[in-house]
Amino acid sequence: MSADTAPIAGVELSRVFEHIETNKDQFVSRLLDYLRHPSISAHNIGIGEVAELLVHMLSRLGFEARTIPTSGHPMVVGRWECAPGSPTVLLYGHYDVQPPDPLDAWISPPFEPTIREGRIYARGAGDNKGQHFAQILAVESYLAVHGRLPCNVLFLLEGEEENGSPHIADFVRAHRDQLRTDLVVTADGPLHESGRPVITYGVRGIAAFELRARAANSDVHSGNFGGVVPNPIWMLVHLLATMKNADGEITVDGFYDDVVAPTDLDRAAAARLPLDPEDIKRSLGLKVLDSPADRLLGDRLMFHPTLTINGFNGGYGGPGAKTVLPHEALVKCDVRLVERQDPDDILAKIEAHVKTRAPHVEFVRLESTPPSRTPLDAPFSDVVQSAVHTAHGVEPLIYPSLGGSLPDYVFTKILGVPSFVVPYANFDEANHAPNENIKIDCFLKGVRTGAALLDALGRFECSRESAPAEPAP
Amino acid sequence: MSADTAPIAGVELSRVFEHIETNKDQFVSRLLDYLRHPSISAHNIGIGEVAELLVHMLSRLGFEARTIPTSGHPMVVGRWECAPGSPTVLLYGHYDVQPPDPLDAWISPPFEPTIREGRIYARGAGDNKGQHFAQILAVESYLAVHGRLPCNVLFLLEGEEENGSPHIADFVRAHRDQLRTDLVVTADGPLHESGRPVITYGVRGIAAFELRARAANSDVHSGNFGGVVPNPIWMLVHLLATMKNADGEITVDGFYDDVVAPTDLDRAAAARLPLDPEDIKRSLGLKVLDSPADRLLGDRLMFHPTLTINGFNGGYGGPGAKTVLPHEALVKCDVRLVERQDPDDILAKIEAHVKTRAPHVEFVRLESTPPSRTPLDAPFSDVVQSAVHTAHGVEPLIYPSLGGSLPDYVFTKILGVPSFVVPYANFDEANHAPNENIKIDCFLKGVRTGAALLDALGRFECSRESAPAEPAP
Repeated sequence: MSADTAPIAGVELSRVFEHIETNKDQFVSRLLDYLRHPSISAHNIGIGEVAELLVHMLSRLGFEARTIPTSGHPMVVGRWECAPGSPTVLLYGHYDVQPPDPLDAWISPPFEPTIREGRIYARGAGDNKGQHFAQILAVESYLAVHGRLPCNVLFLLEGEEENGSPHIADFVRAHRDQLRTDLVVTADGPLHESGRPVITYGVRGIAAFELRARAANSDVHSGNFGGVVPNPIWMLVHLLATMKNADGEITVDGFYDDVVAPTDLDRAAAARLPLDPEDIKRSLGLKVLDSPADRLLGDRLMFHPTLTINGFNGGYGGPGAKTVLPHEALVKCDVRLVERQDPDDILAKIEAHVKTRAPHVEFVRLESTPPSRTPLDAPFSDVVQSAVHTAHGVEPLIYPSLGGSLPDYVFTKILGVPSFVVPYANFDEANHAPNENIKIDCFLKGVRTGAALLDALGRFECSRESAPAEPAP
Repeated sequence: MSADTAPIAGVELSRVFEHIETNKDQFVSRLLDYLRHPSISAHNIGIGEVAELLVHMLSRLGFEARTIPTSGHPMVVGRWECAPGSPTVLLYGHYDVQPPDPLDAWISPPFEPTIREGRIYARGAGDNKGQHFAQILAVESYLAVHGRLPCNVLFLLEGEEENGSPHIADFVRAHRDQLRTDLVVTADGPLHESGRPVITYGVRGIAAFELRARAANSDVHSGNFGGVVPNPIWMLVHLLATMKNADGEITVDGFYDDVVAPTDLDRAAAARLPLDPEDIKRSLGLKVLDSPADRLLGDRLMFHPTLTINGFNGGYGGPGAKTVLPHEALVKCDVRLVERQDPDDILAKIEAHVKTRAPHVEFVRLESTPPSRTPLDAPFSDVVQSAVHTAHGVEPLIYPSLGGSLPDYVFTKILGVPSFVVPYANFDEANHAPNENIKIDCFLKGVRTGAALLDALGRFECSRESAPAEPAP
């Protein structure tokens, strides 16, 4: 498909698109109002107020909406289930934002939304208020035109995504019945740099750990004790060298056991992505990419796990020489996991490796999140692709997976349904940075995309077929 | 010999010992005054002031004393040559100290000398102010009692030993005539753990270097770029793992080529040393010694070179996880060399290794000093042993070599004279570490030892016989 052969909106959807076009100024104005409310999860500022604001917005649209407490910040859940026989879509987003520091790097204040050159500048404009508000306006527009929705809709809006979503897995497990759905759609992240829409079918997982080595009870002189006292840095160097070789292969026993090779569909999709290693090398000033040299760029990010050393710190790092034999050193690592590696299993394998190779080195588990994948031929895949195509008039780029990690597994593995990430923000949204922004055009295309999605789902023959979920407790 | 058969001090020396005993409190008090002056060569703090202080001290004793500039910190040279026909001894020491970091690990501030339980705590207490100040007090005491010295004495006090003595070789070559001597005695380093005196006939050399790795032009996200962007920490881990194996063998081509095996005398002396690996393990809290496990403790320190990583620093080292892929990392190493490894040759071999194995890693030379050895049967060997025995009443332990490095080669290889290291500090002086200290008892025994040495040399039949020197330019 190309832009020339984009699906044409049917009559019902066309009328919704017209409503959006007619009301675009007041939509932008209402987004500005929403962005004026800070909701900084890390500092516990404004969270309760914004959660209640969302409950109010959804209730006005006829949703059964409420906040549900967690042991952290509350979830906002809204449900509209008056389309029996039609599928249910869960729209996930998060209403918390990153802290706005450094404040003096903002051209206009982060919670005084300002329009400049077709962009709305404010903390949360892109990540994620502008995106889930677009979903709410899509629902509102459909209801305004047709008085009903063509499918059932659940909103799940989290208040601590920027804190690493520490409670969402427990929440989804505990509220599995209330979250019954056929698919999940998340509007988060950016469009492609070119402006082309994107649909992402998965994320890599993460398993982070520390290696702590100690030898003597204090630093000693490298002359008086060199050759006598073991060196914790050498211990860690020799240990790490047994964990990954110079060709980039991770050499921990069983590490690759559960890696599922990409399907032909995955490979074909990756091959169609406009990924140019020369662009990355140019922008980051690199002479070469990481080993192995012959791996495709898309494969590196989507289909291969990694073992990254995030930090190695021990001994003297100042200017000149210091003849010290250090007594402790610390290594921090993260593993990016691909389907179906399990973080607990991988951490157990690494811990066993460490215990065997370097019994004096302490292994400490840090955060972990499983990977998530929705097959490219999963139910609703065509529906979502078609909706995005219709709304943008341009064929979306299909990413089998992202390189980074999000708790998407709560949908694919706990709820057992297909999950699609459909970003609405511009590539240069500056999320997590000063002068965060969303292009008004992207925001309005987001509202259209949300409406097109509802419309397409309304025309889907619902069979309630889905991937196997985690067994209920 | 044992303590029972120790040589008895003659009348002249006995009177000097009495003077030392009578004046011990003011000697300690004057050492505290001296230690209050920081002289941190690495940070160029207080060097000129302390050099002038030493010139003043020596001049007051009737020495012709002055500072002589180098292209680094100045040398302090003092000469007393009114004993024609008697041998000349050059007393070497260094007036600079290590930086005191980390400051918050000191119980009392490093430059506010404090006495606790018979020890003086201060930076430089043991290394080396307390030791060369003891030599000065030995000379002062001899002069106070007898009005003259029994042999000729040259002081050579360096201001940048802790920086690796970068200019002493050039200085000694340029001032060869002014430094004509029959032997060199250096008071530096510690006594045996038991408190027994020690004479050392050599030192290991040192060759220090840095390895700097860079990849991208900034830190990147380990999810978005893991597997794509090379990791400078992994680059250094893999490079280091090719330089020394886990069995402790240094695997740089040609590294061991010039190592001279110890003589029978060396081996016999080493075998008589009370070196107990269990003591070291207990005092430093170690479960095992460094690899290889079966090497004799004395051999580890005296007859084998080392490759110590002094520091490995890159990326995140704070609490918790941080999903960063760092863009640079720094490793600092020192090699301890044994006779007759040459530091320039060894650094060239390591640099060639790095260029071959990791061409993107930058190799930077830091300080270097050749090893030094005086044969156990060299001239003045018996005289020095006898003097130490007299002062302590205990037979000294004879170390063919120290583990550490001093620029002793400038005496054995440039001046071509025997050189003896006679340490005065306690074993647990904590040199180069927080809470550096010297026991008052050790300090005062040092003053006695200096006096006994002068006395013994005064009774030596001087034949001006010495080892072959480097040819004069």
